[in-house]
Amino acid sequence: MSDVEGAWQALRDHVGEIETLGSIGGMLDWDQQTMMPPRAAKLRGSQQALLARLAHERLADPRIAGWLAALEGSGEPVRRACVRNLRRKHERARRVTAELVERLAHARARGFAAWLEAKRSADFARFEPELGELLELSLRRAEAIDPERHPYEVVLETYDPGVEVGFLSELFARLRAGLEPLLAAIAARPQLPSLGGEFEPARQAALHREVAATLGYEFEGGRLDEAEHPFTSGHGPGDVRITTHYERHDLLSGLSGTIHETGHGLYEQGLPHEHDGTSVSRAASFGLHESQSRFWENFVGRSLAFCTWLAPRIEAHFPGAGIEAERLYQAGNRVERGLRRVAADEVTYNLHIILRFELELALFERKLAVADLPEAWNARHREILGVGPADDAEGVLQDVHWSSAAFGYFPSYTLGNLWAASLGRSLEEGVPDLWSQVERGEFSEVLGFLRERVHGKGHLLEAPEIMRAAVGERDAVADLLGHLWQRHGCLYGVEEAATR
Amino acid sequence: MSDVEGAWQALRDHVGEIETLGSIGGMLDWDQQTMMPPRAAKLRGSQQALLARLAHERLADPRIAGWLAALEGSGEPVRRACVRNLRRKHERARRVTAELVERLAHARARGFAAWLEAKRSADFARFEPELGELLELSLRRAEAIDPERHPYEVVLETYDPGVEVGFLSELFARLRAGLEPLLAAIAARPQLPSLGGEFEPARQAALHREVAATLGYEFEGGRLDEAEHPFTSGHGPGDVRITTHYERHDLLSGLSGTIHETGHGLYEQGLPHEHDGTSVSRAASFGLHESQSRFWENFVGRSLAFCTWLAPRIEAHFPGAGIEAERLYQAGNRVERGLRRVAADEVTYNLHIILRFELELALFERKLAVADLPEAWNARHREILGVGPADDAEGVLQDVHWSSAAFGYFPSYTLGNLWAASLGRSLEEGVPDLWSQVERGEFSEVLGFLRERVHGKGHLLEAPEIMRAAVGERDAVADLLGHLWQRHGCLYGVEEAATR
Repeated sequence: MSDVEGAWQALRDHVGEIETLGSIGGMLDWDQQTMMPPRAAKLRGSQQALLARLAHERLADPRIAGWLAALEGSGEPVRRACVRNLRRKHERARRVTAELVERLAHARARGFAAWLEAKRSADFARFEPELGELLELSLRRAEAIDPERHPYEVVLETYDPGVEVGFLSELFARLRAGLEPLLAAIAARPQLPSLGGEFEPARQAALHREVAATLGYEFEGGRLDEAEHPFTSGHGPGDVRITTHYERHDLLSGLSGTIHETGHGLYEQGLPHEHDGTSVSRAASFGLHESQSRFWENFVGRSLAFCTWLAPRIEAHFPGAGIEAERLYQAGNRVERGLRRVAADEVTYNLHIILRFELELALFERKLAVADLPEAWNARHREILGVGPADDAEGVLQDVHWSSAAFGYFPSYTLGNLWAASLGRSLEEGVPDLWSQVERGEFSEVLGFLRERVHGKGHLLEAPEIMRAAVGERDAVADLLGHLWQRHGCLYGVEEAATR
Repeated sequence: MSDVEGAWQALRDHVGEIETLGSIGGMLDWDQQTMMPPRAAKLRGSQQALLARLAHERLADPRIAGWLAALEGSGEPVRRACVRNLRRKHERARRVTAELVERLAHARARGFAAWLEAKRSADFARFEPELGELLELSLRRAEAIDPERHPYEVVLETYDPGVEVGFLSELFARLRAGLEPLLAAIAARPQLPSLGGEFEPARQAALHREVAATLGYEFEGGRLDEAEHPFTSGHGPGDVRITTHYERHDLLSGLSGTIHETGHGLYEQGLPHEHDGTSVSRAASFGLHESQSRFWENFVGRSLAFCTWLAPRIEAHFPGAGIEAERLYQAGNRVERGLRRVAADEVTYNLHIILRFELELALFERKLAVADLPEAWNARHREILGVGPADDAEGVLQDVHWSSAAFGYFPSYTLGNLWAASLGRSLEEGVPDLWSQVERGEFSEVLGFLRERVHGKGHLLEAPEIMRAAVGERDAVADLLGHLWQRHGCLYGVEEAATR
């Protein structure tokens, strides 16, 4: 075996082990959020800390540099992508001590438990010390990885490599400027009716399973369970688990959650697992992951065509509910400057992200103290969204992310929304009968498009490159605003201002 | 820090890591048997193989010998026990190659999947190659651990250290001789009536939860789920999960399964977890573990007093079922020379174990080929139990054990039955109002006795020593036979032969 082939084999074995450790951690995380008994929290923390340390030791292993050097310049796409991905991961890992990795893992376990308690009692003070520690450890980690760079940019790289603070600031400013006229126009119009009604959770579950399966999610290699905060756990081929949450008096919130997670699940099930052990069969970025969930949840799931297919399926599971497509379409697209990000409509959603981006940036620049976070949240929430929370549970404590130190994750949601809009507009242009396929509950051409252009690419290219290859050069902000004006302008009877 | 203290600290950290790896493996195993989607089998095999290798590397770590040498002669009970336990584990591990450990882990994952398929299609041939490989790898492993010893004794040591083939042969002969007169006497009497009826599984689940909680099982640190083959998964403090199986037309089979697993769960929940990281907070042996499950399932669960408490609880969950205590007591103690070990009554159960012990011994002595196993099973089953299975599913494929290479496990069930009888007889002698406590559904004194004398001892002493300290010098065979004659002699109206 040549040196190059030897290095490739050694790197694959090594990366395979890191991926397996990651898949085990993913399993434990899924279990923690769906099945785990309350008293297991401390043990789970030790388990996750050990797995994190083992994965970190392997990522920081100095032999990696030698293997990468041997493989440098390879023209074969998988190897080239593997070298690029591993170089970044290795460089980040080798600068962080194992001690810091373990402290972070333990702090995450404690943070999640404290956040749950704090949220249940609407008491930020209960979470404040843990959040403070998570922030300090995250800052120490960012400093260790690159003391020259903006620490927030270092954490952003975890989720969407290459995204810069300046780029996000401009992007959000442009998006906000584009959303305001639409929101103002909608605010002047009568509100659309909501759905109401009562829906037995066990029957909702059966409906959700049918919807997920019809979209293409394979239950032979997955599950659908209930979790406090819905998420998808993809651990390799054959084990991709989605979760949702059933509300007895709100059929649509759970359903859109399931469609969202199905989007994530379809992506995970479509990754090129023949390249396991090379980093290439993993998601290219969190933003790209979110583009898949938001594409299905919003672009497809909130369309009139989808509602036309869905209405009789609801009737089948809830005989006599009498929900017609048009009513579903209206209820699913009510625009409201509300309090909860996960319940937000397509139009206001990104405003919730802007709020979080600003606060995270302020925390990372030490311009905002953790203790002052609830007040800052409430004040800025009122400025951006026009309403403020009644307590911390529906305010600063609403999201799970900070409890696991996932600072810098939120912007990926907006990247996902933008890319989802570009994928949707591109499909609309390229598939003339797109909406009649959706009306008939036929999703195979849509899924095939995503499988070929996004899922199957894995992490061969970086996410922005995958998008460029998938849809060409498009202005994603224009795609999103165009889509929102088209759908909501029509629903609310407002016309797009010529000034946009 | 002295050398001794340094060695103790290092050993504790090291053992703690091994225990954490074990708890992660236990979680994945629980998931595999309760939640995992079918297509995840291959990935799960890789995950378990990696965990097995990591644990093995740590157990075989040559530094352990140095730490043990430094701690040799310590008079402190926890340290002394830790040295004893680790010496055995280390000696066994260091002789086995990591390659063999990984091959066994992969073979187990394949074996379990093949066994499931084979059982579903009642086709032993589907499982034969995997079983053959599992046996060969187990023999290679036994040979590596100690080429001088009987290979079956080497595997027995995994479950109950110190148990020898000669001891078991004599024990089983004595037990069989003692059981035959009772079985003959019962066979001459009319059979007791069975329960019949139809019981909705979801309501059974609620009843089972109440029973487990009343016995003392803590759901804050546990769960009750359904599995094909009920088991208990104890992974550390705060996470002890039991499983059961609901049969719509057989209330008692599921219920006795739950009580059995609750016994395992109570043991795990009562282990001295303050000694985590020393091996001392783990079960002392599988036989002792089984003594706990069988004590609750049989000695308590099949007693008239327990049935007296249980009957109104059944009525509460199944109004109008009208099952009185006496009827429950009779139905729960029907003696039948049947086909299924897990469904066997207290009297014939050990005959099922004798069959398996003989066949395993023959396989390990290479006197029986894997291909001839079904025929040998059927023939010997007819000789020992008087009936033979109609197909392999209810014959040689009925148990999960061999699919994970758990050869040598079965004798632990009989050790458990014997020790359970001694614990029961000893409690009857020491607690005059024992049965009226049970009638009232009060189990705290019984549980307290077990907590103090068995659970809380962890692995401080070896299992036979724990039993000696718990009940004194007793003849366990006489205890079991005495208990069976007393309960079943009375129920069937037969008198103990003076010749026993």
